[in-house]
Order: sequence, then structure tokens, then C-alpha cells
Amino acid sequence: MLDLIAPLVIPNTTKIVVLSLDGLAGLPRPETGRSELETARLPNLSALAAESACGLIRHVAPGITPGSGPGHLGLFGYDPLRYQVGRGVLEALGIDFDLRAGDVAARGNFCTVDGLGRITDRRAGRIATDVCVRLTERLRSIRLPGVELHVEPVKEHRFLLVLRAKGRAGGLSGRLSETDPQALGTPPLHVKPLEPRAKATAQRVNAFVAEARRRLAGSMPANMVLLRGFDQLPQLPRFPEVFGLRSAAIAAYPMYRGLAKLVGMEVLKTGGTFADELASLREQWETYDFFFLHYKDTDKAGEDGDFDAKVAALERLDAFIPDVRALRPDVLAVTGDHSTPSVLASHGWQPVPVLLWSRYCGADPVTAFTERACAGGSLGVFPAQQLMPLVMANALRLTKYGA
Amino acid sequence: MLDLIAPLVIPNTTKIVVLSLDGLAGLPRPETGRSELETARLPNLSALAAESACGLIRHVAPGITPGSGPGHLGLFGYDPLRYQVGRGVLEALGIDFDLRAGDVAARGNFCTVDGLGRITDRRAGRIATDVCVRLTERLRSIRLPGVELHVEPVKEHRFLLVLRAKGRAGGLSGRLSETDPQALGTPPLHVKPLEPRAKATAQRVNAFVAEARRRLAGSMPANMVLLRGFDQLPQLPRFPEVFGLRSAAIAAYPMYRGLAKLVGMEVLKTGGTFADELASLREQWETYDFFFLHYKDTDKAGEDGDFDAKVAALERLDAFIPDVRALRPDVLAVTGDHSTPSVLASHGWQPVPVLLWSRYCGADPVTAFTERACAGGSLGVFPAQQLMPLVMANALRLTKYGA
Repeated sequence: MLDLIAPLVIPNTTKIVVLSLDGLAGLPRPETGRSELETARLPNLSALAAESACGLIRHVAPGITPGSGPGHLGLFGYDPLRYQVGRGVLEALGIDFDLRAGDVAARGNFCTVDGLGRITDRRAGRIATDVCVRLTERLRSIRLPGVELHVEPVKEHRFLLVLRAKGRAGGLSGRLSETDPQALGTPPLHVKPLEPRAKATAQRVNAFVAEARRRLAGSMPANMVLLRGFDQLPQLPRFPEVFGLRSAAIAAYPMYRGLAKLVGMEVLKTGGTFADELASLREQWETYDFFFLHYKDTDKAGEDGDFDAKVAALERLDAFIPDVRALRPDVLAVTGDHSTPSVLASHGWQPVPVLLWSRYCGADPVTAFTERACAGGSLGVFPAQQLMPLVMANALRLTKYGA
Repeated sequence: MLDLIAPLVIPNTTKIVVLSLDGLAGLPRPETGRSELETARLPNLSALAAESACGLIRHVAPGITPGSGPGHLGLFGYDPLRYQVGRGVLEALGIDFDLRAGDVAARGNFCTVDGLGRITDRRAGRIATDVCVRLTERLRSIRLPGVELHVEPVKEHRFLLVLRAKGRAGGLSGRLSETDPQALGTPPLHVKPLEPRAKATAQRVNAFVAEARRRLAGSMPANMVLLRGFDQLPQLPRFPEVFGLRSAAIAAYPMYRGLAKLVGMEVLKTGGTFADELASLREQWETYDFFFLHYKDTDKAGEDGDFDAKVAALERLDAFIPDVRALRPDVLAVTGDHSTPSVLASHGWQPVPVLLWSRYCGADPVTAFTERACAGGSLGVFPAQQLMPLVMANALRLTKYGA
């Protein structure tokens, strides 16, 4: 798809906003038969939907629940089955860690082992985050030859491990097996290289784990570490070049800033609220052609299983829609990176409503921005990576294919 | 798709029922403009559809009429264009023949040849089945070196030929050309090996045909045989392992039991009626997680071109829906393996209604289980092999893809 699009891109000065409501789609609450979107009062989104082409986005495949990585790569135009982001890399993005090309990142867990070294709790009883901070400090001073080590606390029992080659030391490789056996009663596994050039990296990681064991020996219940999801920054086609767009991302949460940075978007400084994000959008309106705008509250409420909070988050967002429209974007798309139904209290596999507004979007019968209404929209149910080509076409930024 | 699903499977204790109404979809009767599903009174299926996500299943591709093999493989989650079951194998499954790995099966026709050996009737005037039984007995005693021979009557002029390697004899191959020239006035063809290792098998088959000609010389009109669809049991990924489900099939007809066995399901003992099938379902409810339940009457009536009989078959089935629901499955899907419109009196290419019920299926506007209503459902029109991933997701048996 990217290979098809890139040669068709033509210059234009049109402005595009893609607004992603994280975890947008939901499911009906059994008592009312109405979903969060169907329960919320969304006058602005409804009016916009009535003027837009609507549909449902399926991010990976039917029945497949997307993580945040695949969910966003799809919205950015990348086939999430072809382009993958490892767990270690995502963990780094999620805490705004400045991961560089060549770094190897892994997700770490503090865990509990018994006197014989066998795992008794893979999450060390979910220790408090401040304990995690203290313990990562203890590990941070471990020294390994030729490698700069970063150990960063994430949350509760989770931490980030990053290996960075020092100076002219040979390249590292993220093709490593995991130490987490995903089972109790057995000791953590040794890391094995999954390609020949990963041998030295595996040795370093195993040395780190051995030393970590010594330093944590007295710190029950978090007396050992598990490492998984070793990976390096993926090589992705650069979004600004593929689509010929001066591209900016505005997101209050580090994970989404990180994903946008991965594909080469500029990440704009912004505050912690959506009002702050809108202020950034207004300030930088002239500087960029494409804005990826991220709203987190919908997902948070869904993950908490709090139906009413998700309804409220939708209504709060709806109130900002006139401000976005006041900027007069040529194309405005509103959708999400995955569903987070409150009744599931987790990401879901359900397709996600999308509306696409432009002067050229065509008419369709949808007059409400809900799962049920968008199922009857003119865009149908389509893979996320098809959104960007539609957005580009509506921005009059693609020439025709073939003579 | 199977490669995507298998690593995402997580353990759960949820119960799944997939109910296949053979030849479900139909076409409007010209006098009323209403299809069989639209004519039948189906209060229970309608109520279920109103609580379900609905759509249409396309089993192979637009305009392609599925045979029973592809129709079922799709419902089991297998891409029917990738995984194929030969005609000889299907014929064996259809009569409950215990086909084993390495056996070569072919479909046989008794035919009529003239004094010069030229075919004058490819079906020997559709001899009665009891004549077929007598003639197969005459062929069964043919002896071939290194090969055990099975000749089984099927129906009218049709029989099954199976070659099984004896003891330590070299492996057989099903990569053989057919003897049926699909034309009159020419003699049957010799079987040719389509791969080098099929040479010995081709010789055995040609020897069988020569001997069959001698033994049938006096038995006009069935004085010769035609053989086609040589094949061996295909190597299919095993359903219970791919989906992590203790899987059982309940079907009164041998063909469908055989197809389920092909993918590794347990085939449960059952009687000849759907009431018997439901009794088996109830008995074995605790032993399995996944039940494939097959209802044949809809297809039979459609094949007979009997619109009213198909309506009646649908209404009979509808009455059993409360019994299925009384077991409280976590996921209940109702669909079919292909359409059999009464006005065609044969399998058709039309997509087939599907409803998918679970606590998490989401709402859609469909309130009737008909071709027309399901076309507007939230599942859209989708390939059959996407049903199992949706079923698995609704059973909360898939973890998310990507971090």
C-alpha cells in the first residue's frame, strides 16, 4: 500500500487532522442495550458524522484485539501485520525514554524466586512503584564491558532495560530469547542468541541477570528479574516522506508520542490536557500540514471498566470538536486505535467507528457517531491502513494511478 | 490466519457452539419475492438474531459455489483455497469409510462402453443402487500386487475405490490423472502418474481397470468403470491444537463427521435426527469446549428444489433453538456451509447468513435471520475462515496482538 501511495503523492497546501480517541469503540451496557457512544450526548460529533463519510475500522483482523503499537501503526498507514514494534521498544516509548537506533530494549519484571532459584511469583506481588524505583537504582550501577546500561522504573513490578553499545563496540542485536518461562516452579531461563551476531549481546544480558540476582538477593519479594520482548527500533518507512506531509503529533501520553516519533513525525510540546493539546494545535497550525491528535481519557475509563466515566470522557471530547473545526481543516478524520469496551475493561477486537470529513467525502446515511450507525456507513468496514490513502485523497494530495 | 491465531490463544473454560444449517441460504420464490428464510416463521432465530451480531459469509469467493469440503473447511477456520480435500477422499468420508493416511481414494462411476470400448453413457443409465452393490462385489475380489483393494458402493452408478499399501510396500501416491474423458465416443483414458513416485500406483490402477473391464464385460449397461478425483488424506493443521479447544462434532451424516475428523475433532456418537444430535450435545456438554453441530434437512429440501420443504425444515430447526440456548453456551454461532436455493435445486454461490451471539458480540440493527436482513449486519460480508477468530474472541480465548 505504501509503495502504491508514495509515487502518487502531489504537493498541496491542504490541512489534515486525524483525531484518535483511544479505545473509542465500546459495547452495549446490558441494562440499557446502548454502548458508551450511544449513551453519551455528542451533538458535535453527531453533526459532524452527518456531514461525513462513516465506517468501521478493523485494525488487525477479525477477532484480533490490537495492542497500542499495531493500533497506531495502522492509523499511520502501516500494515500492522508487516510492521511490528517489540514490547521492549514500546515500554521505552511509554516512558519517553530516548531510545536510539541500535539500542536493545527489553521489558523487565521484578519477580520472586525461592531458595533454589525457582520462580514463585512472576510479578513479585506487584510491588509499589516507589520500591521499583529504589530497586532499579540498585541495578543501574551494574557495569558490563562495551555496553552502556539503562535501567528505568516503569510502574509497580515493571522496569525497562536498555543496552547501548559504547563507542566503537560491535553492534548489538535484539534477536534474543526471553528469560521469563511464563510458569512458576522453574528458574528463569538463560538468554539465547536467536541469530549468530546476537551472541555477544546474549552474554552481556546473562551477565546482567547474574549480577542483578546478587544485588537483589536480600530484597524479598523482589529478589530476581525476568526479561522479555527484546527488540530494537524497527526500520519503518518515514511517514513525512511517504505521504509528503509536514507531520506533527500532539499527545499528552508518552507512548503515543513515541509511536509517532517512530514513523518520523514531529512531536509537539504540549500540556497534560486535551485543552493543552488544542492550544498546541492552534499555535502550530501554519507550520504543519498533518496533525495526529490523541485523546486518552476514553481508553482509561474503558480499561477501568467505568462505563459512566467513558461516557463522560466522550462528552468532554465532543465539546472540543467546534474548536477543531474552527481551524477549518480540509480533512478531519475522527476514529480510534482500538476498542476498549467498559464491559470488557480491556482492549477489545470490535471494529472502531470512523468519520471522514472533507468537501469531497461524499454523502452517506450515517447521522450519529456510534458503532451501530457507522456499520451502515459508506466507507464500510476496512483495515486501518486504508485510512491514510482516503485522507490523502480527500486532501487532494494524490494524483491518479495509471494514465 | 491460523499462524496469526495460534500464538494468541489463551486458556479459558468458555463453551462454544457452531450450528451449521446445511445449504442455509436461498433465493426469493418468484411468486412472492420472499426467500425460504423470509417465508418461514422463525421466532427463535429472529429473537436470537436481534441479540446477535449478524452478517453474510462468503465461503470461497464471489460467484463461486462451494462444495461441502470447502464449505466446511471455511467454517472450521481453514482457507478453502489453500486447504483442499480431493473428491475421492470426500467420497470416502461420505460413506464413513475408514480412510487412513497413505491410502489413495478415487471416485468411481459405472459407465457403458460399446463394442469398440467407446463410452456411450458416463453413468450407465444411473443403475439402481442394489445393482451397484452387486457389481462392486464382483470388483472387490480383484487382486493386485502389494496393494489392498477396497471397492465400496456409494449410490446409483457411484462407487469408491481405495488402494492401501500392504505391509512394507512402498508408499502410494494420489497424484494420478483421471480415466474419465468427460466426453462420449472415446474410450476411457489410461491413468498417468503426475509425479515420478506415482508410477507404481498408476500401474496398479491401470491393472485394476483392465481387470474390471473383463469382469464387467457381460453386465450391460454397467460394463466399464471411470475413475477420477484420486487423492490422499490431506495434511491439515489440527483444529483442537490451533484453537486450543476440546472439540467435538455432532452430525447425523457421515460426510460431515468425516470432514470434522479430518481436522482432528472428536466425532460424537449420535442418532439420525436433530433431536438425537441435541441429546448428544447435552450428554457431552461438560466434556468439550467446542461443538460443531450439523443440520442436514435444509440442504436436502433445497437440492430437491422443494421450497416448501425447505421452509418446513427451517421451522423445525427453529423450534430446537431454545434447547441449544438452555445449555447457556458462551458463544453461539448459526450459519451454513453454502447456500442451496430451492429455485436452483443445487448448491449456490450466494453468501450465507450468519449470526454470532455472545455477551460481547456488540449490537447491530438486524432483527431477522434472513439473507436480506443479515446483509445490513455489523459483521458485513466476510470469508468463512474469519468466523473462528471472531468466535474465539467472543469466547475470550484470544489475547491481544502486539503490546
